Amino acid sequence: MSKKSICRFNLPELKDVPADIVKRITYVQEKSGFVPNVFLVLAKRPEEFRAFFAYHDALMEKESGLTKGEREMIVVTTSGINQCLYCVVAHGAIVRIREKRPHLSEQLATNYLKADITPRQKVMLDFAVKISSESYKLNNSDFEAMHSHGFSDEDIWDTGAISSFFALSNRMANLTSMLPNDEFYMMGRLQ
Amino acid sequence: MSKKSICRFNLPELKDVPADIVKRITYVQEKSGFVPNVFLVLAKRPEEFRAFFAYHDALMEKESGLTKGEREMIVVTTSGINQCLYCVVAHGAIVRIREKRPHLSEQLATNYLKADITPRQKVMLDFAVKISSESYKLNNSDFEAMHSHGFSDEDIWDTGAISSFFALSNRMANLTSMLPNDEFYMMGRLQ
Amino acid sequence: MSKKSICRFNLPELKDVPADIVKRITYVQEKSGFVPNVFLVLAKRPEEFRAFFAYHDALMEKESGLTKGEREMIVVTTSGINQCLYCVVAHGAIVRIREKRPHLSEQLATNYLKADITPRQKVMLDFAVKISSESYKLNNSDFEAMHSHGFSDEDIWDTGAISSFFALSNRMANLTSMLPNDEFYMMGRLQ
Amino acid sequence: MSKKSICRFNLPELKDVPADIVKRITYVQEKSGFVPNVFLVLAKRPEEFRAFFAYHDALMEKESGLTKGEREMIVVTTSGINQCLYCVVAHGAIVRIREKRPHLSEQLATNYLKADITPRQKVMLDFAVKISSESYKLNNSDFEAMHSHGFSDEDIWDTGAISSFFALSNRMANLTSMLPNDEFYMMGRLQ
Amino acid sequence: MSKKSICRFNLPELKDVPADIVKRITYVQEKSGFVPNVFLVLAKRPEEFRAFFAYHDALMEKESGLTKGEREMIVVTTSGINQCLYCVVAHGAIVRIREKRPHLSEQLATNYLKADITPRQKVMLDFAVKISSESYKLNNSDFEAMHSHGFSDEDIWDTGAISSFFALSNRMANLTSMLPNDEFYMMGRLQ
Amino acid sequence: MSKKSICRFNLPELKDVPADIVKRITYVQEKSGFVPNVFLVLAKRPEEFRAFFAYHDALMEKESGLTKGEREMIVVTTSGINQCLYCVVAHGAIVRIREKRPHLSEQLATNYLKADITPRQKVMLDFAVKISSESYKLNNSDFEAMHSHGFSDEDIWDTGAISSFFALSNRMANLTSMLPNDEFYMMGRLQ
Repeated sequence: MSKKSICRFNLPELKDVPADIVKRITYVQEKSGFVPNVFLVLAKRPEEFRAFFAYHDALMEKESGLTKGEREMIVVTTSGINQCLYCVVAHGAIVRIREKRPHLSEQLATNYLKADITPRQKVMLDFAVKISSESYKLNNSDFEAMHSHGFSDEDIWDTGAISSFFALSNRMANLTSMLPNDEFYMMGRLQ
Repeated sequence: MSKKSICRFNLPELKDVPADIVKRITYVQEKSGFVPNVFLVLAKRPEEFRAFFAYHDALMEKESGLTKGEREMIVVTTSGINQCLYCVVAHGAIVRIREKRPHLSEQLATNYLKADITPRQKVMLDFAVKISSESYKLNNSDFEAMHSHGFSDEDIWDTGAISSFFALSNRMANLTSMLPNDEFYMMGRLQ
Repeated sequence: MSKKSICRFNLPELKDVPADIVKRITYVQEKSGFVPNVFLVLAKRPEEFRAFFAYHDALMEKESGLTKGEREMIVVTTSGINQCLYCVVAHGAIVRIREKRPHLSEQLATNYLKADITPRQKVMLDFAVKISSESYKLNNSDFEAMHSHGFSDEDIWDTGAISSFFALSNRMANLTSMLPNDEFYMMGRLQ
Repeated sequence: MSKKSICRFNLPELKDVPADIVKRITYVQEKSGFVPNVFLVLAKRPEEFRAFFAYHDALMEKESGLTKGEREMIVVTTSGINQCLYCVVAHGAIVRIREKRPHLSEQLATNYLKADITPRQKVMLDFAVKISSESYKLNNSDFEAMHSHGFSDEDIWDTGAISSFFALSNRMANLTSMLPNDEFYMMGRLQ
Repeated sequence: MSKKSICRFNLPELKDVPADIVKRITYVQEKSGFVPNVFLVLAKRPEEFRAFFAYHDALMEKESGLTKGEREMIVVTTSGINQCLYCVVAHGAIVRIREKRPHLSEQLATNYLKADITPRQKVMLDFAVKISSESYKLNNSDFEAMHSHGFSDEDIWDTGAISSFFALSNRMANLTSMLPNDEFYMMGRLQ
Repeated sequence: MSKKSICRFNLPELKDVPADIVKRITYVQEKSGFVPNVFLVLAKRPEEFRAFFAYHDALMEKESGLTKGEREMIVVTTSGINQCLYCVVAHGAIVRIREKRPHLSEQLATNYLKADITPRQKVMLDFAVKISSESYKLNNSDFEAMHSHGFSDEDIWDTGAISSFFALSNRMANLTSMLPNDEFYMMGRLQ
């Protein structure tokens, strides 16, 4: 592994990476055709790597009242506000693919109020943005807005937890100056 | 488990909590004499519980160039800025105990620039606060300030990663309106 | 008097302090068992000392529709937002004593929206915080919220004036790097 | 006294105002030719009135390393940032008179960095603005900047204390919606 | 032309200024009795000069549902928030003249919420300030507030376009450190 | 012309658009293969249309010390900060084409500090961002940073003027809820 152009920190030699992490990296490489840089950067810290992806999967892969596409909308929107290049580009690719809409990523990353999404999804993003930017001000009216658009308490937890997890993720990407792989930029743009 | 006064969400019945989580809760209860509310609140989501504490332990329990007390300084300082009552009170107790200094928690939570800590620790907190509040502006001069006070790249990662993890943790506590246990308020104040 | 550890400025010799100020300092020492540092720091400027404490007493000691405990809630909450260590710690002690509630100070200083207070008191603190942080935006709806919770115009003046006075006080404490006495940290925590 | 157009609160009948306050009001009326509204508004609260003007005089009337004109520069600049109409207009008049420069008030109230003042005065205003807007961030470099332009510790206290006092004053004016007298607008404009 | 005291950049020799621009400058000089500095500064760039004044005239000189005085209210209010000395002073003069009210300029530049204007004009300024300061948050409720006070869609466009044009103008004045002519300060103050 | 999906305001019938504007629209359509929505939206106001594009061309089409690609970098970066969807997408396309780099637009719109550009270009963008976000704080050190990287006074004017012009443009796009044409999203991504 070379740290060139993907990260500010020295990255580990592949031979020093634990087997379970190599296995996950190999798996994602076979599935995606390349290894997203976040796997290489976090491999530097195996314990953190395992916890990070376990947390990610618990929120992003499970059954939920939010579709997988909606969950990615939360990621791209809050990552845009946090100015996190890695997450905007990598999850921008995923939201384009999941929603089969090639223009959605830039709309969400730039200004979700202008995005071509439903009013219900805008309320979800209002909530996610408040968690991301000023969670200490959260109050009953925020929960009522979600309930009035049909979101359950479980959906609200999901919305807030995804926003919270990417508050962590965005900061790790900025800490490490993690850059997105070139492959992400074009994924999901041609249909 | 009762959700009364500790959280905005319904909490699970103890009988529905997986055995490994019950075991961890029992362990912390035996060690501390009470169950910190974060364990009860997150038990609602077993997968997230496991990932959260695995991440926490990976950062806060391991060997590091930062002492355990210094790591708690990062938690209390950034949680104060994020106005997270749970983390200020719970980790305020821990920093008082770890550092054996009963006044340190309020100094850090209110204004770390006025706290009775070393200049090196202030630089560490400058970095942690920047990650917490405007990580997208991080630049070489922030790294140079850390290096010039003897922090290694590994120490910088630890500083940034702890600040990032509690960016998540603070948001989850605000999302759930998680309240700190009464026990925390007095811990470490009498010597 | 030594300036060591309590203030950035040189403090006067006791022999140079006017008699009325020595008398007030002696009085508070007899009543409290120690001299709060604010008395020593401001003694450097006798005219300002007299005006400061006259103003303080006019707001904090008189009869009012706000209890003395509620007035201290305003002080601790706005001082927390202004990151004033002296006022958070000193008035945190007073609010714990006045309200006979040892946990209240940290709740208010960290995030009053999470504090265990009445809805009416939260409205009072909303008003106080708006005066402290963006008084130029005050409008009729702020007054209506106060009136609808039973606050009179006189109560509103008190709320706003206390917030305003501590806007001054917090800045003087930050200007002088005034540190709180050790005694304050434990007062009112044991019942 | 009529509250019409000068204040949001009911003002006292003149017959109910204590004699010492009537005396001060009469004095200022004779000297200025009119009664500035701040005297009428604060007369509602005699104790606060006395403390307010005692504090004001202690800072603004005494001998100081800052000229009286420079002290008014601090008032106009920080009141502009706090968007306090009363203080910008009333003290704008005073700074024009004291400095014999009819354009200075609008320069300071709008953007002191563009004002026609000395570099030393700009450093003084940098310090005053920092006290006004983010006093909790004050650090050694702010004091060094003042010292390097020849300001003594006493001058620094004056600068910070005036900024602090008008942090109070601006908030009281916004609380009460205190309006400036018409007379102030033209004072000091014609030479 | 001398750049002395009016601008940070070198200004052109009059002989190098194109005839149409000389003509416009001569015209304004004859009409006003002096040449406002913005004409001299922008003459440095003839193409930009022509576009700037064409844009200005299209918004400020045409027929509109907003009076010319109201349009200047927008300029002075948003220029105050942007801390643009040139526009506050120059357009402050114009608003005093157009509205025949010598105190209006300082009220608007300091805090339009305290200005002696109609509720309808305050709503217009709310809209203008939102365009100036956070246009990306504009939503239906902002348009409804305007409509409910009788503003047409064309009026809303005018309000927003004037605020937008002076967002440009304020930044050009700050870029060039353009200073207002002395003549502006007194215009419209005596009636 | 239909306003459907491109703008909040009613747009003119083509037959009501002046001939010179129809000509420009026809020209751009022939050159680009489609009519960018900004032409249709601004055609509602012919005088403003002419001034807008005259200003645009004066800055973006002329000879300059900044390349055309660098000028588009300024547009995309400041439009990202202003959360202007139209300009991020439309000028994102142009910067990809001008620089022949398909990934540059998202880097600049998200966080220019992470973009793959030269240190000199970062200084140019620092300056442009300061003009866009807090032009009133501009000072000598900002000019020195530009000069030290070889930018002339004319280049600085260009940088500031482009940032200023798009401060206007971004606000007009947000005022009108102008949406970018679908065509822009893919332009310049395939090489």
